[in-house]
Amino acid sequence: MKHISILGSTGSIGRQTLDIAAAHRNSLKVVAMAAGNSNLPLLSEQIVKFRPDLVSVPTAADATALKDLLAGERRGITFLIGDEGLDAVASHSKADTVVTGVVGFLGLKPTAAAIRAGKTIALANKETLVAAGAAIMPLAREHGSRIVPVDSEHSAIFQSLGSNTSADLSRIWLTASGGPFRTWSKKQIAGATIGDALKHPNWSMGPKITIDSATLMNKGLEVIEARWLFDVEASDIRVVIHPQSILHSAVEFVDGSIIGQMGVPDMRLPIHFALFFPDRVYSERVPRLNLAELSQLTFEEPDIDRFPCLKLAQSVAAESNTLPAVLNAANEFAVAAFLSEKIKYSQIPEQIEQVLLNHRPVSKPNLDDIIGADTWARKESKSIMKAKAT
Amino acid sequence: MKHISILGSTGSIGRQTLDIAAAHRNSLKVVAMAAGNSNLPLLSEQIVKFRPDLVSVPTAADATALKDLLAGERRGITFLIGDEGLDAVASHSKADTVVTGVVGFLGLKPTAAAIRAGKTIALANKETLVAAGAAIMPLAREHGSRIVPVDSEHSAIFQSLGSNTSADLSRIWLTASGGPFRTWSKKQIAGATIGDALKHPNWSMGPKITIDSATLMNKGLEVIEARWLFDVEASDIRVVIHPQSILHSAVEFVDGSIIGQMGVPDMRLPIHFALFFPDRVYSERVPRLNLAELSQLTFEEPDIDRFPCLKLAQSVAAESNTLPAVLNAANEFAVAAFLSEKIKYSQIPEQIEQVLLNHRPVSKPNLDDIIGADTWARKESKSIMKAKAT
Repeated sequence: MKHISILGSTGSIGRQTLDIAAAHRNSLKVVAMAAGNSNLPLLSEQIVKFRPDLVSVPTAADATALKDLLAGERRGITFLIGDEGLDAVASHSKADTVVTGVVGFLGLKPTAAAIRAGKTIALANKETLVAAGAAIMPLAREHGSRIVPVDSEHSAIFQSLGSNTSADLSRIWLTASGGPFRTWSKKQIAGATIGDALKHPNWSMGPKITIDSATLMNKGLEVIEARWLFDVEASDIRVVIHPQSILHSAVEFVDGSIIGQMGVPDMRLPIHFALFFPDRVYSERVPRLNLAELSQLTFEEPDIDRFPCLKLAQSVAAESNTLPAVLNAANEFAVAAFLSEKIKYSQIPEQIEQVLLNHRPVSKPNLDDIIGADTWARKESKSIMKAKAT
Repeated sequence: MKHISILGSTGSIGRQTLDIAAAHRNSLKVVAMAAGNSNLPLLSEQIVKFRPDLVSVPTAADATALKDLLAGERRGITFLIGDEGLDAVASHSKADTVVTGVVGFLGLKPTAAAIRAGKTIALANKETLVAAGAAIMPLAREHGSRIVPVDSEHSAIFQSLGSNTSADLSRIWLTASGGPFRTWSKKQIAGATIGDALKHPNWSMGPKITIDSATLMNKGLEVIEARWLFDVEASDIRVVIHPQSILHSAVEFVDGSIIGQMGVPDMRLPIHFALFFPDRVYSERVPRLNLAELSQLTFEEPDIDRFPCLKLAQSVAAESNTLPAVLNAANEFAVAAFLSEKIKYSQIPEQIEQVLLNHRPVSKPNLDDIIGADTWARKESKSIMKAKAT
């Protein structure tokens, strides 16, 4: 029996994790979950179904509302709130694996707490490594915490590497669907609406990552994530557009052999893998890929002219200072501003670039430096947005 | 330093093995080689270049001719002949790895000798496992001899499996280029000439395997080979046509994840892998694959109506009796007869089918039973061919 904690149980990754847990009740037990306050009725249903020991929500008011929803079902469950609650879920004594399904920089602190508690991390929160890889990876080594990626691309790389090490690698091929604007002209992209950007061709994901997939910032963040996870030079990570999203990524060894992982584009596949790692366990939830029914797989170079966010991310990907944290924060801010109709689609890369230019990077940052850079970048983003608007 | 023996040094696999050995003189040393008598001048050049301790040729006359060619260069080299010579090369005390580049059933005895000597086998001779897998695999286990496949498909499966075992597998996807007749009609195929059949679209290989690739018998033999190598049910091995020969094969795990190996269609890649296994070593000889420059990869179901040899092989693939040995022998005979213009292309499957129908299989065969079945099948093939011709 494997015990799991879930950070972000009502989000896309959290819901799919619970779908897998429901199908494997004899081998997976959910011991703790944390969620935001946007969907307390769903959280309440999840609690009734999975009976965790511990639940965390953002505020005392959320906890009261949740307890009301649960009524008699709340007995035997501990409720906590805020950062303290998140940390308690992340470091729950019974948990073997912590699924970090929280979106954005918010995931950093609880992920660090889970690492300090020596948990296996099923890492779905890429922003943690993007912003803080320089501090997080040594922390994981220090506490013997294994990080198993849940991002489909990184899961593919992890699976393809097998028992080989980064010394055996000559390159990583990071595949990208190209998003909804792959075939759009620069001018068309400039006028994209929220609805356009949220129409991902292959993957069903949360809104933030879906916008990141449209701008290709997601792929840039993944380059940085891969760099830390697999201990490779950022320049050895090649992005390739693969519109069918069947080859989820690949590794190229020094002898020229390329090993890649394929499957249907369904996040339950990498989640399932991470939950059961190092074992391979039969899955009835994940649809099977029939290779013979694939008509074709195509590949092309990414176009950084039409997708400047990718270029921005690649420009800081090799840095071990606070620039990646600033890139991430400026991107989170810009995406939120776009989703709430405060800026246009074309302003996303413009604003991020300006914030990066204005930043004075801190070398060899610790977690506090990174949190400081994140805070600065959000403030700076706000100023730039306001200056532009007036 | 790894020491290698080569069975079939002047054949396609042997020449490519020596090409790799020449590029890695500090880590690979050729200690013994055996070759047929069809190209003694080339063998003589190889001996001068690699200075093995031991060389074997088929007959005393071949040995005399070879020594004449070598003149003063023959000093310090032991020359042997016949089966005894092949066995001595296969079990040379200094050899760590034996490359079995001999074509056909001829490879069985020396491969068995190498296994008994506990060598690592870089197996390029698939016929050994096709005909005698039921006897060879237990022998390898008994003597602690590791078999590393050189066939590009099996190397791909081996690499993709990594440290996983057959218990983790749900299927093997065995890719096939489809050969020169992939798009030909049944009628066109029936009239194929030797020249047509020898034009393989992607791979540069010896004549026997090239004909086998045209009939898809090669793929059928590979199903049987894979069954023994990877300890899977023949019914769990799916053949899929992939005309670009980039994905060299793949494994599908119980969780639905598919891992496959890709590369340019160049036999030096799997040979290099097998020679250096378990290490990954930089290769300057193997051309690199640029995924971004691949226009497309396509996949389709094989058509057993147009390629009856595949059906014949699949019909005996699950057997652990002498039928696979008979299939193999009847195929070797038919291909040789076709290449020497004794039978038409369409007679290859007809003749093999007839031999299979006439065979009384021996259950749980030992090596002698298998050699007996092979001898019987060749004799039977000859009778059938003669009866047809009169």
